[in-house]
Amino acid sequence: MHVVAVGGSDAGISAALRARELDPSVDVTVVVADSYPNYSICGIPYFISGEVQPWQSLAHRTLADLEATGMRLRLDSLATEIDVSRRLLAVRDERGHVSEVRYDELIIGTGALPTRAGIDGLDALTPEDGVHVMHSMGDTFALERFLDEHQPTRAIIVGAGYVGLEMAEAFTMRGLTVTQIQRGPEVLSTLDSELGAIVRTEIEQHGVEVLTDSTVVGVEKTDGGVVVRGTRRGEPFSRAADLVLVVVGVRPNTKLLERAGARLGAGHAVVVDRAMRTGLPNVWAAGDGVITHHRLLGETYLPLGTTSHKQGRTAGENAVGGDARFAGSVGTQVVKVFDVVAARTGLRDHEARGVGLAPRTAAAVADDHKRYYPGAQPISIRVTGDELDGRLLGAQLVGRLGTETAKRVDTYATALFAGLTVEQIGELDLSYTPPLGSPWDAVQVASQQWSRTRTKEPNS
Amino acid sequence: MHVVAVGGSDAGISAALRARELDPSVDVTVVVADSYPNYSICGIPYFISGEVQPWQSLAHRTLADLEATGMRLRLDSLATEIDVSRRLLAVRDERGHVSEVRYDELIIGTGALPTRAGIDGLDALTPEDGVHVMHSMGDTFALERFLDEHQPTRAIIVGAGYVGLEMAEAFTMRGLTVTQIQRGPEVLSTLDSELGAIVRTEIEQHGVEVLTDSTVVGVEKTDGGVVVRGTRRGEPFSRAADLVLVVVGVRPNTKLLERAGARLGAGHAVVVDRAMRTGLPNVWAAGDGVITHHRLLGETYLPLGTTSHKQGRTAGENAVGGDARFAGSVGTQVVKVFDVVAARTGLRDHEARGVGLAPRTAAAVADDHKRYYPGAQPISIRVTGDELDGRLLGAQLVGRLGTETAKRVDTYATALFAGLTVEQIGELDLSYTPPLGSPWDAVQVASQQWSRTRTKEPNS
Repeated sequence: MHVVAVGGSDAGISAALRARELDPSVDVTVVVADSYPNYSICGIPYFISGEVQPWQSLAHRTLADLEATGMRLRLDSLATEIDVSRRLLAVRDERGHVSEVRYDELIIGTGALPTRAGIDGLDALTPEDGVHVMHSMGDTFALERFLDEHQPTRAIIVGAGYVGLEMAEAFTMRGLTVTQIQRGPEVLSTLDSELGAIVRTEIEQHGVEVLTDSTVVGVEKTDGGVVVRGTRRGEPFSRAADLVLVVVGVRPNTKLLERAGARLGAGHAVVVDRAMRTGLPNVWAAGDGVITHHRLLGETYLPLGTTSHKQGRTAGENAVGGDARFAGSVGTQVVKVFDVVAARTGLRDHEARGVGLAPRTAAAVADDHKRYYPGAQPISIRVTGDELDGRLLGAQLVGRLGTETAKRVDTYATALFAGLTVEQIGELDLSYTPPLGSPWDAVQVASQQWSRTRTKEPNS
Repeated sequence: MHVVAVGGSDAGISAALRARELDPSVDVTVVVADSYPNYSICGIPYFISGEVQPWQSLAHRTLADLEATGMRLRLDSLATEIDVSRRLLAVRDERGHVSEVRYDELIIGTGALPTRAGIDGLDALTPEDGVHVMHSMGDTFALERFLDEHQPTRAIIVGAGYVGLEMAEAFTMRGLTVTQIQRGPEVLSTLDSELGAIVRTEIEQHGVEVLTDSTVVGVEKTDGGVVVRGTRRGEPFSRAADLVLVVVGVRPNTKLLERAGARLGAGHAVVVDRAMRTGLPNVWAAGDGVITHHRLLGETYLPLGTTSHKQGRTAGENAVGGDARFAGSVGTQVVKVFDVVAARTGLRDHEARGVGLAPRTAAAVADDHKRYYPGAQPISIRVTGDELDGRLLGAQLVGRLGTETAKRVDTYATALFAGLTVEQIGELDLSYTPPLGSPWDAVQVASQQWSRTRTKEPNS
């Protein structure tokens, strides 16, 4: 039996590892488009910042580690076509030579591609011109080479999501002056703006210029550097820099599966069921190229590394005859930006309302540990619950580094997974010692605030 | 309506606060045996260490804060008798004058008292002699006074549980040489010895002498200081010090309720139902003096501040006509000892076996965050699950300070509360960013290790 996984990132490798783990008699081949299987794409900002060196340490596992599991890897090999009826995968190597790989089960984990946000002139400019995206190790090397060779001093980052914010920190650590341009009214638009504002304050205090409500419409190379033009609150604006990084999101990379006849769904991602079946015989798919089962939203598109690992593992298990189901995401995310940690799980008000729920969100600020013990810091928390049945719908947290905010969001994430009510958060038996918590943990102070305001305004 | 709470610590104050919050028309009186209502007893080690100053900052709320809620406090007043049929509480003030307080609903939160472990000579010695216990602010002042006036250089701590370990750190910070004496084979006997050993190494590296397998049988005052005698692995031993602290646990302080006719149960604590009813009309009880409903064990005795808060809140709500139930403990505990954090929740193997379950425990070591990002540290985790139905039964974790170990135990605690299986821990959508986690969080690495060993040894 031969299982072939396409894609050397989280989904493909997780699938291959799981297949080999469950059935060491199965041949497993992973087809990888570049030379960098199992690299931590999430770690790239820390390589650029200089915190992680050399770049090889970004590998979750080395090539030798992977091969030691018994899987084979075909590097620098692009999967170009699936012949579903004959179970053949066409693969083009770096010299352009195309060969066919016979498979019994095929798992597609081709991930996503960076979007360009319809910015004029972007396609014509290259890393050599100082215009960068950041999605692969190739992008990373191009950026690092540009930083080394051109010693830029001014950077513009288009986008202020997770990667954009991490890169603002990375460039600042490298000594660049950074302007961050964000289309919406606040950075980190995945959080309510009250919390995004805390993150903005943090990056501004580290010298980052933040332009919100600003849409970039074009970019061009001039003698004075790369010039970004756009509109800001109805007025035109422009900024020049030595380096422009565009990090405005991703779109699913579905070409291979689309051409084989797979169906597209939410976010133009490939439709899969919870077993990670594509509907094409013997073809499974996982990761940033496919839809995500969300435990509160149903089928959606929400590309996250954690989800790719879980979906990949599910696909790998099922490809060797297992009966696994992807349990679903609740959209848990966290980012560290300088000394602030921002996290969320579940739904925000407008997202819950969008699927017909009756959400209400309450805000609270609670110390990470007893104030009398040195170093206590406030955590800002917003809890969203369903006004009708009291169910927890989501939570957002922002705290200083060291406040265990990243793992406090996990308490909410676990409660969401289990379908607990907001009231039940207050009943949880959470750990307490004065240097690290409070008798009512911060997550409970916030849930009780939600309950308190609910009592006061029934059915509001 | 007059609600009277007896006890100025977690249970009594939580009850009074909840009653006033829900019904501001209700008169609430709290009868407090000393002058220190709502003090954080858990914080005392940090006052002794010098990290928290002045002692007044140990108050969760000041007297003024408490009175601002509308409750009245009768300080230095010892409740001596309950006349259930006439709804009268006898209270003796500091001058010995006894008065009667009429109540409609009475909530008893008299807590626990330190045990003496049957050590010969202990009762005859006082703080002035250099022999201390640590349970009240009065004990604390006596210890602090002794430290100031006698400038001791050698301390013996009898007991190596949570408080004993915290006090070993506190005395070390104060410059004392510490010997810690533990009856069992390892410190922190609430954790498996493999994890307790990590804590022992930590305190030894900070200069603490640890004597395990050592039972103290007597203590006496000599010219050379206070001498502790005992047996260690069958051989007699003795140690002399300027100061001896005995912290070997607590027993429920039930006298008041016992004399009123309440029934005693697990651990000789007062039996209550989940509404915190004692069975005596109009008398409720909560905190370290009563039994604890444990979600896995049923009724047990497990005195913890977090439980006292929740039980007190439940009693306060019900005393003013509410219909609350204490949802139950899962025994979540955490302690910081120097730079190590040790936590547990749920059951260990022998505890689960004791109630007829079929537990198995698996061990794993997983980094707190991606190893390539600076500062990654291993967390040692032991996961206990039920071999028959796969249910999570408990988890124990030890990690360095800064590894978010205290809030990682909360993920397990939440899963336990919700009745999840070990397998489902691996399905949880937990947060990930390289500086603060991994795509499979450490708690999932450990749960997967449990599942992996289960598959290999079915029904073992």
